[in-house]
Amino acid sequence: MTSSLSRRFAAEFVGTAFLVAAVVGSGIMGEKLSGGNVAIALLANTVATGAALVALILAFGPISGAHLNPVVTLAGALERGIAWREVPHYVLAQITGGICGTVLANLMFSLPAVSVSQRVRGGPAQWLSEFIATFGLLVVIWGCTRLRSNAVAFAVGGYITAAYWFTASTSFANPAITIARTLSDTFAGIRPHDAPAFIAAELAGGIAATFFFRWLSPRLPAAAKDVILPHRARE
Amino acid sequence: MTSSLSRRFAAEFVGTAFLVAAVVGSGIMGEKLSGGNVAIALLANTVATGAALVALILAFGPISGAHLNPVVTLAGALERGIAWREVPHYVLAQITGGICGTVLANLMFSLPAVSVSQRVRGGPAQWLSEFIATFGLLVVIWGCTRLRSNAVAFAVGGYITAAYWFTASTSFANPAITIARTLSDTFAGIRPHDAPAFIAAELAGGIAATFFFRWLSPRLPAAAKDVILPHRARE
Amino acid sequence: MTSSLSRRFAAEFVGTAFLVAAVVGSGIMGEKLSGGNVAIALLANTVATGAALVALILAFGPISGAHLNPVVTLAGALERGIAWREVPHYVLAQITGGICGTVLANLMFSLPAVSVSQRVRGGPAQWLSEFIATFGLLVVIWGCTRLRSNAVAFAVGGYITAAYWFTASTSFANPAITIARTLSDTFAGIRPHDAPAFIAAELAGGIAATFFFRWLSPRLPAAAKDVILPHRARE
Amino acid sequence: MTSSLSRRFAAEFVGTAFLVAAVVGSGIMGEKLSGGNVAIALLANTVATGAALVALILAFGPISGAHLNPVVTLAGALERGIAWREVPHYVLAQITGGICGTVLANLMFSLPAVSVSQRVRGGPAQWLSEFIATFGLLVVIWGCTRLRSNAVAFAVGGYITAAYWFTASTSFANPAITIARTLSDTFAGIRPHDAPAFIAAELAGGIAATFFFRWLSPRLPAAAKDVILPHRARE
Repeated sequence: MTSSLSRRFAAEFVGTAFLVAAVVGSGIMGEKLSGGNVAIALLANTVATGAALVALILAFGPISGAHLNPVVTLAGALERGIAWREVPHYVLAQITGGICGTVLANLMFSLPAVSVSQRVRGGPAQWLSEFIATFGLLVVIWGCTRLRSNAVAFAVGGYITAAYWFTASTSFANPAITIARTLSDTFAGIRPHDAPAFIAAELAGGIAATFFFRWLSPRLPAAAKDVILPHRARE
Repeated sequence: MTSSLSRRFAAEFVGTAFLVAAVVGSGIMGEKLSGGNVAIALLANTVATGAALVALILAFGPISGAHLNPVVTLAGALERGIAWREVPHYVLAQITGGICGTVLANLMFSLPAVSVSQRVRGGPAQWLSEFIATFGLLVVIWGCTRLRSNAVAFAVGGYITAAYWFTASTSFANPAITIARTLSDTFAGIRPHDAPAFIAAELAGGIAATFFFRWLSPRLPAAAKDVILPHRARE
Repeated sequence: MTSSLSRRFAAEFVGTAFLVAAVVGSGIMGEKLSGGNVAIALLANTVATGAALVALILAFGPISGAHLNPVVTLAGALERGIAWREVPHYVLAQITGGICGTVLANLMFSLPAVSVSQRVRGGPAQWLSEFIATFGLLVVIWGCTRLRSNAVAFAVGGYITAAYWFTASTSFANPAITIARTLSDTFAGIRPHDAPAFIAAELAGGIAATFFFRWLSPRLPAAAKDVILPHRARE
Repeated sequence: MTSSLSRRFAAEFVGTAFLVAAVVGSGIMGEKLSGGNVAIALLANTVATGAALVALILAFGPISGAHLNPVVTLAGALERGIAWREVPHYVLAQITGGICGTVLANLMFSLPAVSVSQRVRGGPAQWLSEFIATFGLLVVIWGCTRLRSNAVAFAVGGYITAAYWFTASTSFANPAITIARTLSDTFAGIRPHDAPAFIAAELAGGIAATFFFRWLSPRLPAAAKDVILPHRARE
């Protein structure tokens, strides 16, 4: 592991930890304060997640690209934007970072560090939702590579803000976050038993979007190394 | 149909599908969770639609311009920003994409793929609202062409966010979306019988704004090919 | 009146009309749907106003500067950013545009075109609020001139979004809007009897901020001609 | 004190005053209007604070950097981005500006100029929350220095918007604001007795983030003088 890779590993780890802390923590706070109105709790959850994504992508993007999501890393590798040998490092950072994020959120709200979620999330409509959510996420990411602009952070934050509401699953769209959300029995949780199908749908959606964009935008591979934000692999 | 046109057709199709899925899906979710408080449901609907527009315009703008709206395409053709022979392709992509978006939203929420809306939306105040909503949308789009900046995505997203609340019709402002919304008997629906008057008001508003801007900004035609975002017709 | 001035007049007129329509219209819609929860109504009003400001400043800024506010025009003239002889034209456009915006909002919601507001808004705390609100608005506008960036539209939209909540008067901060809001007896209205004191407080706040910034930023006059967005006086 | 420093002092003073006025004032307004639904009050508080941050950083950033926070100034000095001899001036401006902001908010809402808060905020979960909140804030600020873009204002605004919801303490993350919030016995208040532990946690979090970033981004010191926005120390 080169020095550079260790820094990018750290960026993905801390970035995903904060992203999951934002998702899980704002879910706990929203449910606690909303007096039973789930729409208000989800609105708080949405605003917090979208705003956190903008901040985290702008902050960690110049270091590691701010993938913060194994599907993004995998899609990047499919387009040769990241070396395959680095993919396991990125994914490990995202999964372990995500788990730390859940633990942090639980502790900040005086809950046990880990509590396995009992929340059922399954069935074809939910799986379709995850497929569509992740398809859309990768379409947005690939589309924005043509802008060569920081605006991609706002596009991703905006997309997830919307997708929380327009998909029945509230758009996990991220296997690392899906795993992390099994460890908090709160608003944002998901039963471990339901996670594998979510992850499969997310992978399928992300890969489908990548193949679609390979046709749609022939210049894609040249831009893939700059996903989500341009960053230097070596410094 | 050239290869380039087929790609732009696909971008308009997928972009409009996601836009309609965001409008219809977030309406379903908002109504389901808001415990009868329509303002909260509409707030969720608003946030999702505005945020989706930012993401979709940034993602598809560099490919097709991200019109996602027959009025925008028509206004662009009036200013010679898009060839008239391409207009039917754009409009067809937008209408069929929009219908697919409704079907997707219905399926993601375990509803029948299509259910004809029974929601009455009519009368002079509603038609005036659609005229004003679309007039303002085109004024914003034409005005922002002078910026030569990605900021237009935020202007359009911001405008629609506002117009959901300041027009009595909640600002459809888009014939493709109007047609698509007839096919979901949910929060965002509109009775097919009421759609033609909405579409007529939208066309009138968009054309009026375009003539107004032709006087207001003599440099308009030079910028019209870059609506909503600069894109290359051939690649 | 030169051709150029007539165009800028039109931009200020239409821009202020849409801004007032957004303020008044979203107030009507918010009150109608929120089931008596004033915070939700004001949240809708806030989001609509802030988002409309972003869109309108980006759209009309390149033409007239998008002052949309007599205090901004006056402050610009104090710094020689706009010729004094043009000030009456700008202010007239803003006031008449604002009144048209109220009429439009009333008509879109099937209300009488004009209904004089009965809403009492007065007392020292309200006047202090208007002074502070307008002081802050001009501080934000003058501060952002140093950025030479479209970001000023987001700064102004963000500032007013915040000021709706942190001032007791919900931050009118604009004499043209204050006048226009006397003509709708709805959520956003103000009794004509209370308008003069609001307007005096707004003028005092805006002028104080301008004198403060003249000391704070010696380069200010050079930038004043580019308020709120750079635009060409002649084309 | 050079002329330049007096201007930067004034910018930090006024900027922090408005930031605190936004935090405290929107808390008062939110609580007053939300009919007992704390989530809605906090949503209003969140939106106002995040939007104010965007506006204030864009407006005051080019003058003083818009630290508006003693932790940011201290972290900047640790990286030699600001001279140590200027730190006391910055911190004094932030603390006195913050107190004025509370007084202003109280007066705008017809409350006594100062009322000592009785609100208990303490315990390990709250302290952990403040550590994490400030760690994240500094990570976001340091990360964004690499962008050399106004986007940092949106990153900071977005981060605090999220952190209000994902930390149990609603993310004060700022010793000057913590002190100021002891002087209003309203929604945003904190008992003076609880302030020192909050401030200690904030300092620890900010310093930890700075050491972390020193390793993560070896080019950090070169960028530190441009925190939060590039500004000239002498003019």
